[in-house]
Amino acid sequence: MSKHYKYICTNCGNKFVSELIESKKIYLCPDCGSSAKNTPLKGVLTIEYDYEQLKNTYSKKKFLSFAAGEIWNYPDLWPIDFNMIDKNDLEKLSLPSNQILRYNVDGRELYFQDETRNPTYSYKDRASILVALKAKERGINEIAAASTGNAGSSLAGICGRLGLTAHIFVPKNIPEAKRIQIQSYGANIYLVDGDYDQAFDLCLEISTKNNWYNRNTAYNPLTIEGKKSAAFDIYNNLKGKIPRVIFVPVGDGVILGGLHKGFVELKRLELIDYLPKLIAVQAEGSSAVVDFISSNKFDYKPAETIADSICAGAPRNLYMAANAVKESNSFGIKVSDNEILYAQKELAHKTSLLVEPSCASTFAAYQKVKDKFEKDEKIMLLMTGSGLKDFEALKTWNEKLCVKRSDEWKSLLIK
Amino acid sequence: MSKHYKYICTNCGNKFVSELIESKKIYLCPDCGSSAKNTPLKGVLTIEYDYEQLKNTYSKKKFLSFAAGEIWNYPDLWPIDFNMIDKNDLEKLSLPSNQILRYNVDGRELYFQDETRNPTYSYKDRASILVALKAKERGINEIAAASTGNAGSSLAGICGRLGLTAHIFVPKNIPEAKRIQIQSYGANIYLVDGDYDQAFDLCLEISTKNNWYNRNTAYNPLTIEGKKSAAFDIYNNLKGKIPRVIFVPVGDGVILGGLHKGFVELKRLELIDYLPKLIAVQAEGSSAVVDFISSNKFDYKPAETIADSICAGAPRNLYMAANAVKESNSFGIKVSDNEILYAQKELAHKTSLLVEPSCASTFAAYQKVKDKFEKDEKIMLLMTGSGLKDFEALKTWNEKLCVKRSDEWKSLLIK
Repeated sequence: MSKHYKYICTNCGNKFVSELIESKKIYLCPDCGSSAKNTPLKGVLTIEYDYEQLKNTYSKKKFLSFAAGEIWNYPDLWPIDFNMIDKNDLEKLSLPSNQILRYNVDGRELYFQDETRNPTYSYKDRASILVALKAKERGINEIAAASTGNAGSSLAGICGRLGLTAHIFVPKNIPEAKRIQIQSYGANIYLVDGDYDQAFDLCLEISTKNNWYNRNTAYNPLTIEGKKSAAFDIYNNLKGKIPRVIFVPVGDGVILGGLHKGFVELKRLELIDYLPKLIAVQAEGSSAVVDFISSNKFDYKPAETIADSICAGAPRNLYMAANAVKESNSFGIKVSDNEILYAQKELAHKTSLLVEPSCASTFAAYQKVKDKFEKDEKIMLLMTGSGLKDFEALKTWNEKLCVKRSDEWKSLLIK
Repeated sequence: MSKHYKYICTNCGNKFVSELIESKKIYLCPDCGSSAKNTPLKGVLTIEYDYEQLKNTYSKKKFLSFAAGEIWNYPDLWPIDFNMIDKNDLEKLSLPSNQILRYNVDGRELYFQDETRNPTYSYKDRASILVALKAKERGINEIAAASTGNAGSSLAGICGRLGLTAHIFVPKNIPEAKRIQIQSYGANIYLVDGDYDQAFDLCLEISTKNNWYNRNTAYNPLTIEGKKSAAFDIYNNLKGKIPRVIFVPVGDGVILGGLHKGFVELKRLELIDYLPKLIAVQAEGSSAVVDFISSNKFDYKPAETIADSICAGAPRNLYMAANAVKESNSFGIKVSDNEILYAQKELAHKTSLLVEPSCASTFAAYQKVKDKFEKDEKIMLLMTGSGLKDFEALKTWNEKLCVKRSDEWKSLLIK
């Protein structure tokens, strides 16, 4: 049976029949793919549809009639046979339909894509949802992933909603809060005596032995594919008038790569006529993607930053992420941990968006380069995770930077 | 100018012109109202509309055409002149349109109203939004509230979105996490050397002196009014087919009173033909409402429970809450802290809903009395706040009750 999509290698360009890839649980390119310690993945696969034909299926008017947050409204753009999925399962996976917030910040209108109210409070849900739907479609009951926190709690939460079993491999020294979130959803958690790289490798090995489906980020092409859905939701919520510029927090590069793929597809469907500039934002202590963009070289360095969600010494999706920046005629930018903490406070005070340090990095980056853009340029910041997921960071800037606290209520009585 | 609504006293039944009440910042009934330490409020005001006339405005078909989560779609049922409010401000206040989750739990279908993805992750936002809109309408810039946590962070977050200043009075020993949430949104926080009652009184005194608008719960009638909106959202999301039974976590009794008012209004508009039984759920250590329902007597006792959001020795909205239970032909039920913690774990594992202890109490109560109901009775549980707001509770049951954690990954390799 021929499906409506193929897999294509981002490295060698070879194409593969989807049933072959999926039935054999192949993840990287069968011809050139490889995964090695402390190294970006080679031969990452992505999914290609028949855009010429789909142009006729999805006119602008038709696409804009779909509710945002429900990918099953336009099934031809997803590698899932939705007829195999229970309708009630889909209901449990819908994202809020209204995720865009618009604020005037210091005299300039800014758009925020708010992913902090997704089922497990982060953008990672977009990837977990697609992986879990594929598992459901194929009758697979167990999914594994290596994680330093958010991807794991996301997979755990989404699996919990659908009655699937999640196996999460984490370095044993991840922050307690992240570990508790993963456990809370009832996932099996494996504390690995090593770093993320070792958890990644171990997860692959054990998944293969146990015939579990693997959701390692970038490794499973559906993680990238799932993350493209934000582009479609942004398109829908803005009635087709997409931003010119989007600041994206970058760790492994999967959100950046996926988001860009979404916009490229909208362009191939002739629903938009330009690609938004995707600005790659990284922390100074974890800047492999930004460095690669400028130097075209990758050298492994252990990463360290307060923004743990974007802490990645060897970004698995490096090449696709760098390409997204180049294709959208954009650039990368680094910010310091202090700038991130300050931005987190500024954002919360000016917009009431309580976000993780990773997303606050976009606001810090925006402050640095805003003068490069026209005053009326439509600029968006991607808010990828809730601040409540990382309480320690909230506490840090509150104790250090917050000056509005007052024990001096008595002075008010006298006034 | 005559408005489309009046204030009416829940105690003496007297009615008041709305402009008089609002322009003078009157909160309790001018004829019989009183607020005293460790005592439920007397003379709580509610709002009444011309339901006979509104029956013609809102047919079932028309009401069901409104998107849930946006109260401004049916302005005649709110005490706000929406023409005075900036459209962009309204956008920032919309709740997720799809809040109902349906799960098969142990062979029975259950409905969950999920308020954990509201702007500040709790049901309290419904009250804060209405109070903040009234402030905007009347050109008031500063709002004050006493709080033990959620109400304060909600008001802080909603004020932040609209550029209003929030003043939050809290007992100085509230959990650190709650304090940090309030501060994070940039509110002024006042640590009161005393308990919630003292914070409540001090907040009233200082609000009056400084001419701030006061959002103390139940005291400001708009807190009750705001909380009715969940009834309308439930009606919309279920296409008019509302539940027969709803389990409601009860502290001050404002959610219970407000929710009931919403259903009563739907009935007066002839949009529904029965009132759902609202089951009042309280913790054993904080059971003033449930005790009052059975004994018709109130005796102040200091309250203590792990479910801090429903910890209230003197529920401010006691009489209205008890009346809601009686009018809906229902009952109250108490659960222990251990039952709450266990229910929190069961809920997270069976539905992936990560909720505060207060809402887990409803699942504990449901387990106790489920056999009283027919198998196909439509039952809903109200999930009022995110579990991430109270990380300590998550941690407690994870460490005590969670058995799925495994450091023994090696055994899997051998399998």
